[in-house]
Amino acid sequence: MTPEQFRQYGHQLIDLIADYRQSVGERPVMAQVQPGYLKAALPQGAPRQGEPFEAILADVDKLLMPGLSHWQHPDFYGYFPSNGTLSSVLGDFLSTGLGVLGLSWQSSPALSELEETTLDWLRQLLGLGDQWSGVIQDTASTSTLVALICARERATDHAQVRGGLQGQARPLIVYVSAHAHSSVDKAALLAGFGRDNIRLIATDEQFAMRPEALEAAIAKDLVAGNQPCAVIATTGTTTTTALDPLRAIGEIAQANQLWLHVDSAMAGSAMILPECRWMWDGIELADSVVVNAHKWLGVAFDCSIYYVRDPQHLIRVMSTNPSYLQSAVDGEVKNLRDWGIPLGRRFRALKLWFMLRSEGVEALQQRLRRDLDNARWLAEQVEATAGWELLAPVQLQTLCIRHRPAGLDDEALDRHTRAWAERLNASGDAYVTPATLNGRWMVRVSVGALPTEREHVQRLWQRLQAVVA
Amino acid sequence: MTPEQFRQYGHQLIDLIADYRQSVGERPVMAQVQPGYLKAALPQGAPRQGEPFEAILADVDKLLMPGLSHWQHPDFYGYFPSNGTLSSVLGDFLSTGLGVLGLSWQSSPALSELEETTLDWLRQLLGLGDQWSGVIQDTASTSTLVALICARERATDHAQVRGGLQGQARPLIVYVSAHAHSSVDKAALLAGFGRDNIRLIATDEQFAMRPEALEAAIAKDLVAGNQPCAVIATTGTTTTTALDPLRAIGEIAQANQLWLHVDSAMAGSAMILPECRWMWDGIELADSVVVNAHKWLGVAFDCSIYYVRDPQHLIRVMSTNPSYLQSAVDGEVKNLRDWGIPLGRRFRALKLWFMLRSEGVEALQQRLRRDLDNARWLAEQVEATAGWELLAPVQLQTLCIRHRPAGLDDEALDRHTRAWAERLNASGDAYVTPATLNGRWMVRVSVGALPTEREHVQRLWQRLQAVVA
Repeated sequence: MTPEQFRQYGHQLIDLIADYRQSVGERPVMAQVQPGYLKAALPQGAPRQGEPFEAILADVDKLLMPGLSHWQHPDFYGYFPSNGTLSSVLGDFLSTGLGVLGLSWQSSPALSELEETTLDWLRQLLGLGDQWSGVIQDTASTSTLVALICARERATDHAQVRGGLQGQARPLIVYVSAHAHSSVDKAALLAGFGRDNIRLIATDEQFAMRPEALEAAIAKDLVAGNQPCAVIATTGTTTTTALDPLRAIGEIAQANQLWLHVDSAMAGSAMILPECRWMWDGIELADSVVVNAHKWLGVAFDCSIYYVRDPQHLIRVMSTNPSYLQSAVDGEVKNLRDWGIPLGRRFRALKLWFMLRSEGVEALQQRLRRDLDNARWLAEQVEATAGWELLAPVQLQTLCIRHRPAGLDDEALDRHTRAWAERLNASGDAYVTPATLNGRWMVRVSVGALPTEREHVQRLWQRLQAVVA
Repeated sequence: MTPEQFRQYGHQLIDLIADYRQSVGERPVMAQVQPGYLKAALPQGAPRQGEPFEAILADVDKLLMPGLSHWQHPDFYGYFPSNGTLSSVLGDFLSTGLGVLGLSWQSSPALSELEETTLDWLRQLLGLGDQWSGVIQDTASTSTLVALICARERATDHAQVRGGLQGQARPLIVYVSAHAHSSVDKAALLAGFGRDNIRLIATDEQFAMRPEALEAAIAKDLVAGNQPCAVIATTGTTTTTALDPLRAIGEIAQANQLWLHVDSAMAGSAMILPECRWMWDGIELADSVVVNAHKWLGVAFDCSIYYVRDPQHLIRVMSTNPSYLQSAVDGEVKNLRDWGIPLGRRFRALKLWFMLRSEGVEALQQRLRRDLDNARWLAEQVEATAGWELLAPVQLQTLCIRHRPAGLDDEALDRHTRAWAERLNASGDAYVTPATLNGRWMVRVSVGALPTEREHVQRLWQRLQAVVA
């Protein structure tokens, strides 16, 4: 494809995407297809000769569109929002179009420096002190893995112990809330700690980690001769957006020399609102924190921001310095390959920069406040209506709800809940996420997709009442 | 930004990118800026109010462009090529524009199924048997980390040993060529093996791993009571594109129950050429292999393909199954979150699909053959010219060259080599990568950027001769 052909087809594609974003609300929000539908429709192998671009676009429309669940849809309330603001989309287009790579500062200086600058802008917006340095990772799963590897290396003093985790005499222990995201457990296993060395800490009636339970678990491990290594606290857990008490956990971490990693993948976006900052009280006691700018905040996926207080430690854990990557200015610059797992890096700061500049901070704050208001409004309806219940405090923009008809025992209630959630999703009218809480099924409604206004939430409430009938 | 504004600005951006690709050859290929140039030019914080899109585009031109090293430039011979064909760029645009996520099959069925289908197309093109299943990772660094974690878990029988690597009685050992990429060493350290448990295996005069040295190292470890765990072989090493002998290494691996991971990040692309398949002789003995479709092949970064022979093992290592990710069809579908580290996934198969369909296989083969021819032509000039030397066989499209004026000792020769490479890069006329080989500096010339034709390579040869004078 020549640049002139690209120009022509690119204009077509821009129109396709603009049309899609304009009319996505008219599509069923959850894909209505059966497993295998696309594999069966596609050829068995790649074509020998190139095909006209029009044929590809026709297949996008005919074959792919029906198989999408639409995350940018006004009736999307599933998982957590993953907003791709159109300004950030254009920033990402520029990244892909330029096709430059950030192996090292020299391999594209603007890539490294724009990442450093925009992450410093975001740091200020989140209210983090200037002791924090950031880097873009792909997802919170990766950020948390990086954090746990760093914790492991600090605890084993990587400069001294050359046997790696295999040279560790006393087992290193990781502490996580019973409500931590599945990626935390996964990261601990991938980092090699072993399942027996992960402690699930009990939560309180609001699903937040109990500091005294953490303290007790640490004490027990010390008696047993184990070495407490890291604790992961969450601001905005996946099931209920519970807020672990950072200050109390941070003080316990410091007293016991634990690495404190804070998973703020979801709630981190809310830190651009001064009225939400109390949720992060104690954040300065953490060693690392992850904020997914690609969630509610609105930077096109993927843009998970990992902030650390000791970048030199991160660099010691992650750095490699083969001759083919060295340059004369290495002493003066940030080489971002030493801040994470991958060597090659996209120019991801462009999408953050485009969004911050094009929208401005106040518009972002307004949108998040709109969503908080909408979630509060829906919570009020649920609370005020007989037969409905809210199962967790609405701290942010996610509700845990259940419809409880009279006379159902627990098992029947579970069947009822899953059945209506599935009916709602299958209808294409709204996308919600069923999940378990205290061992029973309920439905998560996560408000905050980009185009979701009050009228959509009002319509959702009507649909919820209709679908359970 | 509304869809209508996006339409307007998107058209502007398409033109900017088309113009950039058309005229990139007129820019200095390596950025001519000093460390800190961009940080100093940007504001200290994000704007409160949104700015006009025109202001952002103006800054792209004025501030960013001078700070790019241009990987899509016809005079780019640095590192390895990272080609972003314009058809794949459009596929990536569609991914970002749609903004759907692949947490699970249900969260966008087309995303999972198109990845499965296109990776099967690519598998056939590469000549891999149908026992191989693929998944897209971001980079080879990550793919190799995944491979080594899988090797570690197989060796420790993760179902049984709940202490993780900490429960391991006999140290697990990883074997790598002394010419393996820096990411291999890094992956072994991140996976927790420890530096003392990484064996660097000697190479032959063509910089390929010596199977008998591998065998001897394994025997020594067995005597010492260690447990051989994994060997990483490379097809196309970074410094010289050396080819480790896969069949011999694979037979040793099977005899000793080692995980064999093959790093074909670079040379994997060449496997679409039947005449290059001999380089992969024995590949069916491997457990995992990585091919970076975002390098020479031309899929816009990032698109690192990880193929495994035992996907069930990969899934056991990587899977999580919290209630909020479950769906009714989980038994029938591929949930790609269980095939790697991240939970969230972009729709990256689109860029591979767009490229394969738009270009067709034959055009891709022709382009790679063009590059092989150009590299051979340049190698002939170097070999035929007094004062120049080729330091390694030109197996693919990368040359290791040196200019050796009479009467220089080793140290002086190193100074001469680094000086002319730096002069050439600073001139903006070509981008090459100095590196060390056998402890002495030489210059890597990696042919294969998308727009590089014979005339550019001829011009490079003239410039090389001029710059050393």
